[in-house]
Amino acid sequence: MRVAEAGQSWFVAGLAGMCIGINAALISIITAWLSDLKMGYCSDGWWLNRQFCCWEIEGDSDGCDSWHPWSPAWAVRWIVYTIFASVFSFTAAHLVRSIAKYAAGSGISEIKCIIGGFTMKGYLGFGTFFIKSMTLPLVIASGLSVGKEGPSVHVACCIGNLVASLFSRYSRSQGKMREILTASSAAGVAVAFGSPIGGVLFSIEEMSSIFSIKTMWRSFVCALMATATLSAMNPYRSGKLVLFQVTYDRDWHFFEIIVFVILGIFGGLYGAFVVKFNLQVAAFRRKYLGSFPVSEAVLLATITALVGWFNRFIRIDMTESMSILFRECQGGGDYDNICQTSEQWTMVNSLFLATVLRIGLVIISYGCKVPAGIFVPSMAIGATFGRMIGIMVKALYRAYPRSSMFAVCQMDVQCITPGTYAFLGAAAALSGIMRLTVTVVVIMFELTGALTYILPTMIVLLVTKAVGDFLGTNGIADEMIRFNGYPFLERDDESYNVPVSRVMKRDIRTLPASGLRVRDIEDRLASTQIKGFPIVSADGTGLLVGYIERADLRHILDKAPHVQDISPDTPCSFLPDEGDQNHASLRVDIPGIAAGPAVGVDDDISMEIIETIAIPNVLKFWPWVNRTPLTVAPQLPLEVVMQLFKRMGPRVILIEDHEVLSGLVTVKDVLRFTVTEQSPARSPWDEREF
Amino acid sequence: MRVAEAGQSWFVAGLAGMCIGINAALISIITAWLSDLKMGYCSDGWWLNRQFCCWEIEGDSDGCDSWHPWSPAWAVRWIVYTIFASVFSFTAAHLVRSIAKYAAGSGISEIKCIIGGFTMKGYLGFGTFFIKSMTLPLVIASGLSVGKEGPSVHVACCIGNLVASLFSRYSRSQGKMREILTASSAAGVAVAFGSPIGGVLFSIEEMSSIFSIKTMWRSFVCALMATATLSAMNPYRSGKLVLFQVTYDRDWHFFEIIVFVILGIFGGLYGAFVVKFNLQVAAFRRKYLGSFPVSEAVLLATITALVGWFNRFIRIDMTESMSILFRECQGGGDYDNICQTSEQWTMVNSLFLATVLRIGLVIISYGCKVPAGIFVPSMAIGATFGRMIGIMVKALYRAYPRSSMFAVCQMDVQCITPGTYAFLGAAAALSGIMRLTVTVVVIMFELTGALTYILPTMIVLLVTKAVGDFLGTNGIADEMIRFNGYPFLERDDESYNVPVSRVMKRDIRTLPASGLRVRDIEDRLASTQIKGFPIVSADGTGLLVGYIERADLRHILDKAPHVQDISPDTPCSFLPDEGDQNHASLRVDIPGIAAGPAVGVDDDISMEIIETIAIPNVLKFWPWVNRTPLTVAPQLPLEVVMQLFKRMGPRVILIEDHEVLSGLVTVKDVLRFTVTEQSPARSPWDEREF
Repeated sequence: MRVAEAGQSWFVAGLAGMCIGINAALISIITAWLSDLKMGYCSDGWWLNRQFCCWEIEGDSDGCDSWHPWSPAWAVRWIVYTIFASVFSFTAAHLVRSIAKYAAGSGISEIKCIIGGFTMKGYLGFGTFFIKSMTLPLVIASGLSVGKEGPSVHVACCIGNLVASLFSRYSRSQGKMREILTASSAAGVAVAFGSPIGGVLFSIEEMSSIFSIKTMWRSFVCALMATATLSAMNPYRSGKLVLFQVTYDRDWHFFEIIVFVILGIFGGLYGAFVVKFNLQVAAFRRKYLGSFPVSEAVLLATITALVGWFNRFIRIDMTESMSILFRECQGGGDYDNICQTSEQWTMVNSLFLATVLRIGLVIISYGCKVPAGIFVPSMAIGATFGRMIGIMVKALYRAYPRSSMFAVCQMDVQCITPGTYAFLGAAAALSGIMRLTVTVVVIMFELTGALTYILPTMIVLLVTKAVGDFLGTNGIADEMIRFNGYPFLERDDESYNVPVSRVMKRDIRTLPASGLRVRDIEDRLASTQIKGFPIVSADGTGLLVGYIERADLRHILDKAPHVQDISPDTPCSFLPDEGDQNHASLRVDIPGIAAGPAVGVDDDISMEIIETIAIPNVLKFWPWVNRTPLTVAPQLPLEVVMQLFKRMGPRVILIEDHEVLSGLVTVKDVLRFTVTEQSPARSPWDEREF
Repeated sequence: MRVAEAGQSWFVAGLAGMCIGINAALISIITAWLSDLKMGYCSDGWWLNRQFCCWEIEGDSDGCDSWHPWSPAWAVRWIVYTIFASVFSFTAAHLVRSIAKYAAGSGISEIKCIIGGFTMKGYLGFGTFFIKSMTLPLVIASGLSVGKEGPSVHVACCIGNLVASLFSRYSRSQGKMREILTASSAAGVAVAFGSPIGGVLFSIEEMSSIFSIKTMWRSFVCALMATATLSAMNPYRSGKLVLFQVTYDRDWHFFEIIVFVILGIFGGLYGAFVVKFNLQVAAFRRKYLGSFPVSEAVLLATITALVGWFNRFIRIDMTESMSILFRECQGGGDYDNICQTSEQWTMVNSLFLATVLRIGLVIISYGCKVPAGIFVPSMAIGATFGRMIGIMVKALYRAYPRSSMFAVCQMDVQCITPGTYAFLGAAAALSGIMRLTVTVVVIMFELTGALTYILPTMIVLLVTKAVGDFLGTNGIADEMIRFNGYPFLERDDESYNVPVSRVMKRDIRTLPASGLRVRDIEDRLASTQIKGFPIVSADGTGLLVGYIERADLRHILDKAPHVQDISPDTPCSFLPDEGDQNHASLRVDIPGIAAGPAVGVDDDISMEIIETIAIPNVLKFWPWVNRTPLTVAPQLPLEVVMQLFKRMGPRVILIEDHEVLSGLVTVKDVLRFTVTEQSPARSPWDEREF
C-alpha cells in the first residue's frame, strides 16, 4: 500500500517531467524556426531554420547557399523584419485575448499564490496550456523584449496539473496537487535553463511556501525527467540544452574583484530601477490600455523591431546574443569583430546603447498581454553591460599593461576575458530583478560548469543582494502579487499589534451537527461557494465540534446513493453515535493539518467507508469531519496567525472563544486587513469567495 | 537600526566563515604531513610533507631525492607504518577521553538536534573545538576508516558558536544562534568538499528543521567566506580545494544507464547494510567497550594498518585513493598500472578486496571514540566498487567490441571511462548512507564541474533512493539520533491516535502573576533547571496568563539592581497595571513564535525598558512575559502537536482546558511517548531537564 503510493507519486512526477521536456523541445524548435523566418528562408525546405538549412556547412555562418535573406537591400530586409514582428505579435495577442486570457504574462506570481493555497479556476487548464505553448514561440520570435522562462514555468505547471488530474489521489487533494505543481515549476526552470538542480532550488527559494524534503525530492524527479527528455530530444542538435551554454578555460585574478563589485552594484540598481518603473507602467496599462491589449502588443513589437534593427545586439534573438557575449574570444567567439581592439570603442557604444535601449523596452514590454517572462531579458541586459565593462577593462589593461593593478597578469596570456564579465553581469541582473541568490549561482554554474567561476558569481550576488537590501527592493514576482492584490502572505513578518479578532469574519455559515436533511445540505451548497463549513452543536449553544470541506460533502452526496437509499428527506449526521464506535479503525492517516480523517483517500476506500457505516435512513458524514480543526483564541496576535498560515498551511483558522465558535479567518481576510492598513486601495479579488 | 542589524548578521556569518576557512586549511596541511610521515621523511626539513618536499620535481611521483622512506625493506616499512598508526590513534583517543569527550564521533546527529532546539552544554565549546581540530589530523593520518567531513561540520559549528557568542544579540537568543549554527554547518561541508553550494544544500536538506530564506542566505554568506578563505590559503598549492577534484572530457552513452542502475543499487544496499550492522556494533560498544575507548581506537588503527598495508587502495589516504580512482586514464591517471589491460583482473581483485575490507572496517570503526566521519569512507568504498565495475565493463567492451550494446561507441575513441563509474559509485554510496539526494548531486557536480555528468549522477541517485526507500533505510545520522535517544522529531509523520493530554506533563512549576517577592523567584530558580515558567492568575483558579523564559527572569534579576533599588523583599509583578498602559510602544517585533515581546533585544534596549517602567518597590517583568504562548486543547491529536513543534519550533506547548492551564508538553515528552510506544527501552536522556 505504502510502496504503491510512493511509486505512484514518483510515477506522476516523472510522467509530468517527461511531458514538460517534450513540450519544451517542441517550443524550442518552433521558436528557432520563427525567429529565423524574420531574416530569410531556406530554399531546401521552408520548414528548416537557418541552422538546419546550413547544417552541412561548418564554420562560417554567412556562407550558406541554401539560406536566402528576404532581399539584398537592407531597407527591404528591415521592413520585412518589422512586418513579421508585427504579424507574430498580433497573432499571439489575438489568440491570448480571444481564447485564453490567463495565458498572458509570466505566470510566476500567480503560481506562487496557487502553491500558497489560492485557487484560480482555469489558470492551469488545458486552454491556458495550449494557447501559452502556441503563442510563446510567436512572441519570442516577434523580438519583443520578453523571455520564455516565466511562461515555461507556467506551461510546466499546467502540464503537471493536467497529468496529475488523471489520478484521483491528486485531483481530490489540494495539498498533493500543490506538491506536483511545485515539482513542475522546478521542471519548468530546469528545461528553460538546462539546469535541473537550478530548477529544484528555484522551487525551494521562490515557489514553495512550506519546505519539505518530500516536495524537494519530487521536484528532483520531475526536473530530472524533464531535462533527460529534453536532452534525448536534443532540439538544437548540438548536445546543448540551451543556446547560451558556455565553457571557460581561464581563471580569474584577485584584482578583478573590483569589477565584480561594479557588476554587483549594477545588478542591484537594475533590479530596483526596473521594478519601480515597470510597476508604474503596469498601473498606466491597467488604467488606460485595458481594452487595447492586441494593439499594445503589436505597437510594442513594431517599435522594438524598428529601433532594434539598428543595434547588432538587439536585432538578434536574446539567447543568441547572450551566447555571443558570454564566449571567450578564442575559438570562434569573434562575432561581428567584437574581439578586435580596433573596434573596441564602437563596441562599447553599441553595448551601452543596447543596455539602455533594452532596459527601456523591458520596462514597457513586461506585463503586456502576451506570454512574457523577464528572466532572459534581464540576463541579456546584464550581459551587454558586463561585456561593455569587460571591453573597457581590457582596454585599460592594453593601455597600462605594467600598472601595479595588473601585476599578476603574466604578459604572455590573455589576462582579461570580457566574456566572463558578460556572464557575471547576466547573473547580477537576474538576481537583482528576482531577488534570488542560491538559485542564480546554481543556474549560472550549470550553464558553464566552470568551477572557478563559482566564487566570482557568489561575490557578485553578495553585492547585488546588499544593494537590493539597502534600497529595499522586492522581487518583481512579489511586487506583481502585491500590485494585483492576490492573496499571498509574504515571508517577511511585519508587526500589526492587533488581535486576530479584529480581522476575523464573524458572519459565518455553519452546519448543525444533526437535524439537517439531505435537501437542506443541497440547498446550502447551492446558496454559497464557500469551501468548507464549521460544524457546531445542534443545541444552539454554538459549541464548535468540527469542520468539513465542501468537496467532501459533495463527494458523499454523490457517492452515497450508490450504496444506500438516499432521499431528499434522509437525515444527516456529522457526529458518530454509539453504533459507530467500533468503526474507529476507519480513521486513516491525517494527510494535512487541517484535513479530516478520511479526506483525500482513494475513491474505492471512500466507497468502502460509506458502505461500512451505512445504516438505513441516516446519511453519515462523520468520517470526513475534522474533529480538531486548527483553532485559536480571539486575542491571539495577528502575526502569530500569519505564521500559522504560512507554516502550517491551513485554508481557514477557526476562532474559538471559550469553546464557542466566534469567527473564522482566511488568508484573504488577513491580507484585506494588511492592505487597508497600508493603503485604502481595494483589491480586485476582494469580492470572490475564497 | 534595521540596516545595522542586517549588517551585523552578515558580518557575524562572514567572520565565522572566515575562521572556518582558516581552520580547515590548517587541518588539511597538518593531515597531509602526518599522513606522509607514516611512509617516510623529508631530508630538506622534517616539517615538509612529501608533496612539498618533492615540490621542484614535476611528474614522476617516485623519483624525489629528498624524500626518504623509513627503510628499504618493506617489512620494516610495514612495521613503522603500523607503529605510527597506533601512536596517532592513541594520542587522539587519549586527548579526547581526558579533555573533551564531546569531540568523539561525527557530531552531525548532535548538531541536528541542537539546531532542532536541544541544548547540550559544552558540545560547541572551545574545548571541544580545540581538541577536535587537534585530533582530527591524527585520526585521519592513523589510517582509520573514518573521514573528516562530519567532524569538520562539528568544528565549524563550534567556531560559529564561539564567534557568535561575542555578540550579545546572538548569545542571548537561541533562535538566532541556531541560524548561525545552520550557516556554520553549511560552511563545514563547503570546506570539507570544496563545495560552497553543496554546503548550503546540506544545511537545508539535512540540518535545518525550519527552512527560511534568511537562514539560507546566511548559510550562503558563511559558506562563501569559508570557501574563499580556504581558496586564498590554497593548502594543497594546486588551486584545488580538495584532493579528489577531477575533470572529465568525455561524454556518456545511453547504454551506460544499465551500469548506472547497478551502481545505484549498490549504493542503496551499501547504505542499508552499513546502517544495520554499524548500529549493532554501536550497541556492542556501548555494552562492553564503554570503559576502553583508547584501547579500542588503538586496536582498530593497528588492525587497519596491519591489514590495509597489503591492499594498494587501503594503504594510501582515502582522499588520495579517490583522486586516483576518479581520474581518466589519459594524462597521468595510470597509478600503479590501474589502466593496463594486462593488469585488469589483478585490479578487479584488488578493488573488490578493498571494497569488502573497507566496508568491514567502516562498520567497526565508525562510532569509536575519536573524531570520525562517514562521508569520505563511504565515498571511497563507492569509488573502489565503481572502478571495479568500470574495469569489468571495459574488459567486456574489449572482448566484444562489435556487440550491439556497444554500437554507439565509435571505434577510434575510448568508449568506457572507468573513472566516471568510480565517481558515480562514490555518489551512490554517499547518498545511500546519508539518504541525501540534491546535496550529493551538487557536491559531486562541484567536484567535477562536468555538466555532462549531472544527469548520470541524478539517475544513479534516483535508483539509490528507490532501493533505500524500498528497504526502509534511514540516514545514519537519524539512526544515531534514535540510538542515542536524543530529543529530535523526525520529519516523517506517524500516526499514534492519541490526544496530547496522554503525553503532557501535568505536574508543572508555574509562577503566580503577582504576590511573589524577589527572594521567592531566586529560590524557584535555584530549585529547578526548568527553562521557562507558565504564569497563572494569582487568584488560585489557575487561569493561564502568560509564559516567561528562565533566561529573561535571570537577565532582569541581574540588570534591574543597576537601575532601581531591589531588595529580596521587593514584590514582583508579571502583568502590566494601568500605569504601564502608556508604555505599550515598548512592544517590539516578535522574533519567534514562542518568544515574548522584549525577548532577545540588545542589552542597551533592555536596560532602557527596565528604566522606563521602573517604579519604586515593584520589580516588573511584564515586557518579557509572552502573553500569548502557543496553547492547544487537551484533545488535540498528538500528530498535530508534533507538526506544531516541527514547523513552528517552540520549546514548549502549553495545554489549556477551558482557559485553565492543565499541562505542558515538550519535544522530549513527545519522544518519550513515541519511544515507549515502540519499544520499552528507556532513553538515557530521560532524566535531564529539557
